[in-house]
Amino acid sequence: MVLPTKFDWEKLQQFCIEIFEKNGLSNKDATTVSESLVQANLRGVDSHGVVRTSIYIKRVEEGLINPEAEIAMEQEKGAVTLLNGQNHFGAVVGTKAMNMAIRKSKKYGAALVGVKGSNHFGTGAYYALKAIEQDTLLIVVSNASQTMPPTGGVRPFLGTNPLAVGVPAGKEQPFVLDMATSVVARGKIIVAAQKNEEIPLGWAIDCNGTETTDAQAALDGSVLPLGGAKGYGISMFIDILSGVLTGAGFGKYVNNMYENWNDPQNVGHFFIAIDINQFMPVDQFKSRMDLYIQEIKAEPKAPNVKEIFIPGEIEKRIEEERKKNGIALPEKLVEEFIQLGEKYGLNFLSTEWTGHAANGSEKETIK
Amino acid sequence: MVLPTKFDWEKLQQFCIEIFEKNGLSNKDATTVSESLVQANLRGVDSHGVVRTSIYIKRVEEGLINPEAEIAMEQEKGAVTLLNGQNHFGAVVGTKAMNMAIRKSKKYGAALVGVKGSNHFGTGAYYALKAIEQDTLLIVVSNASQTMPPTGGVRPFLGTNPLAVGVPAGKEQPFVLDMATSVVARGKIIVAAQKNEEIPLGWAIDCNGTETTDAQAALDGSVLPLGGAKGYGISMFIDILSGVLTGAGFGKYVNNMYENWNDPQNVGHFFIAIDINQFMPVDQFKSRMDLYIQEIKAEPKAPNVKEIFIPGEIEKRIEEERKKNGIALPEKLVEEFIQLGEKYGLNFLSTEWTGHAANGSEKETIK
Repeated sequence: MVLPTKFDWEKLQQFCIEIFEKNGLSNKDATTVSESLVQANLRGVDSHGVVRTSIYIKRVEEGLINPEAEIAMEQEKGAVTLLNGQNHFGAVVGTKAMNMAIRKSKKYGAALVGVKGSNHFGTGAYYALKAIEQDTLLIVVSNASQTMPPTGGVRPFLGTNPLAVGVPAGKEQPFVLDMATSVVARGKIIVAAQKNEEIPLGWAIDCNGTETTDAQAALDGSVLPLGGAKGYGISMFIDILSGVLTGAGFGKYVNNMYENWNDPQNVGHFFIAIDINQFMPVDQFKSRMDLYIQEIKAEPKAPNVKEIFIPGEIEKRIEEERKKNGIALPEKLVEEFIQLGEKYGLNFLSTEWTGHAANGSEKETIK
Repeated sequence: MVLPTKFDWEKLQQFCIEIFEKNGLSNKDATTVSESLVQANLRGVDSHGVVRTSIYIKRVEEGLINPEAEIAMEQEKGAVTLLNGQNHFGAVVGTKAMNMAIRKSKKYGAALVGVKGSNHFGTGAYYALKAIEQDTLLIVVSNASQTMPPTGGVRPFLGTNPLAVGVPAGKEQPFVLDMATSVVARGKIIVAAQKNEEIPLGWAIDCNGTETTDAQAALDGSVLPLGGAKGYGISMFIDILSGVLTGAGFGKYVNNMYENWNDPQNVGHFFIAIDINQFMPVDQFKSRMDLYIQEIKAEPKAPNVKEIFIPGEIEKRIEEERKKNGIALPEKLVEEFIQLGEKYGLNFLSTEWTGHAANGSEKETIK
C-alpha cells in the first residue's frame, strides 16, 4: 500500500481532536491544542505542528501533563495577573492567559498575564493571530528548556526562548513576528547533518565551545543565540519575564519535554495585551500600519530579491497554499499516526487529502 | 598649551548643566539631560555621551527642540498613558514618561506609557537603571531615524531602534540590557574605515544592496539588522510600538537629528513598567535573580574566555574605573567644549580636571 503524503487540514485537526479527547482533554481543550498544531503546519512551521502530538500524549500517559487540571489564578491586581497552569497542556494554559490579557486590556488599556506551571505552548504566532482577530496588539514570550550557551559559554544553558508579536493592519496583512532567539532553528542543523553538508560559521559551537561548520559537531554542541551577545541578552530577558518573575522554571529548571520523564516541564509564559483604542481609534491605527507596510514593500530591492516581506507574510502565503493543496507529512509521521489511530480506535487514513482544490489533478489516492 | 585628556565626571556634568541652562532648560531638566549624557560616557557608551551636547544645543538654537515645552497628557486610561513631548528634550520627556510608568505600576501592577513628539532620548540604560533603583522591572524602546534596510532592501528605511530592559537583582549586579537592533554600531564601521580595515561580511551592505567587507562602501550603504530577518522584525516592531501606535513618526517620518534642519524629529518611545511585588515579594525575586546570575556566571567557559558576563556588567565595571580615573575625551571634543564655553561665558578650562583618582599619576594638568 502506498501511503498518502498529503492531508486535509480540517480532517487532520479533527483526528487530533479525537486523539486528545481519548487522552482526557475536553472537546474545547482538545480543539485548542489541535488547532495550534495544525495551524503551525499550515503556516509552514512543521517543527511545531502535528509531529508533537505523540510526545504530548506520552507525557499525559506518564502523568507529566494533566489534561484535567484546574488552572489557578494566584495573583490579581489591576492590569496584572499571575496564573498557575497546574501542568495543563501549554496551549490550553496559554489560550486562557491570552484571553484574560485581551479581556482585561479593554478595562485597563493594557493587561499583563504571567504564567507558571505550564508546558510547551506551541507557536507564539497562534496567540498573536487570535489577538489580531480582536484588534488587539499582543506581545508573548515563553521560556524553553536548555539549548543555547550564554555568550562565552560552551554548553546549553538558555532555551531558544521565543518572542512573538501580533499587530493588526487594515488592507494589508497583519504583522506577525514569531521567532526563536537562536541564530537558526536546530532543525536546520539536523537536516544539514543528514545531508552531510557544512553549516555556516556562526550558527553553532562544538562541545568544546569552538565555532564549527561541522553539522554533527554542532548537534553535539550548542546552537548559538542570534546576533551574539544581543541574542543572549534577549533570551535571558525572556527567561526572566517568563520564569524568574512568574515562579516558573528558568535556566536549567525548565525541564526538557523529550528527555525528562520524572518531572513536569514547569515552563513559564508572559503575555502583554494592548488595547489600541487607548492610543488612537483602531481604524486610524490600521491606516497607519497599511502606510507603513506599503512603504516598506515599495523599497528598492537588493539583487535577486523579488519581494520584500513583512513578518508573517510568507507564512500566510504558505497557509493559503496548504489549505488548498493539503499538508504534506513525512512517511514516518504518517505511520506513527496510523499506529496512534489504531491504539485509540481511529482510522488515520480517512484524513487523506482528497482535495478542496479546483484542480483535480492535485488529488492523492491510496493504491 | 597641552589640553587635558581626562575629565572628572561630576565637574563635566556640572559644565553641561550650566551650558543647557544657558539654553533655556530649567536646572532640573538640564540636570536630567546632562546626567544621561555623562552616564553614557561613564559606562563606556561614548557615542551617546557628552559628544551630543553641541547637536542638542544647535537644534535648540534652530527652534527644533523646545526647552520650555509643556509635556502634555493626551490619553489616560487605567494602566495606559499617551504623552506628547511637545518637542522637549528627549531625556526630559523620557524621564517624565518613565516616572509616570513606575508610579502607575504601583497602582495597576504594571503601566504602559507611549510617547510621541519627542527627540533623541539618550541611552535606554539611563531609564532602566533609574527603574532598578525603585525595584521596578522596566522595558523601554524608542524609534530612531533611518539607518537600516528591511531584509531584502538596499537603503536605510528603519532606525537601529533600541531595546533596553532593567531588572533588579540582590547581591549580584542588576540585569541591564541596552542594545540597538543593528548587527553593530555604525561607529565601529567608521573606525574601520578610518583605519582602512575590512569589516566582517554580514555587518553591512553597499549602496547596491550587496554585502560588503569594504568599510567605506558600507558607510555609503547601510548597516544591517542583527540576525537578518529577525532583527528586521524586532526593529519594525519597536517602530510600531514607539511610532505607529503613539502617533509619533515612524520609518521615514522620524527625522534625522543631524541632517534635517526644517522639522522636529518626532521620535516616539514606549515604556512598560512592572511592579515585581505583584508577582512575588521583591526580595524573593531578587534571590531568584541572584541564583540565575550565579548559575550563568559559573558555566564552563569557551577557549580564551575568562569570564561570562551578564548584560550591563561590563558597563558597570567601566563606570567604576571612569568614576575613579576620569572620562577620556578626544581632543576635537575638548576644543568644541572650549568654544561652547566661550560662547556662553563659561570657561571649560577653568575647571581643574583632576579627578577623584587615588592614584596621583592620573592627574592631568593644564600647562
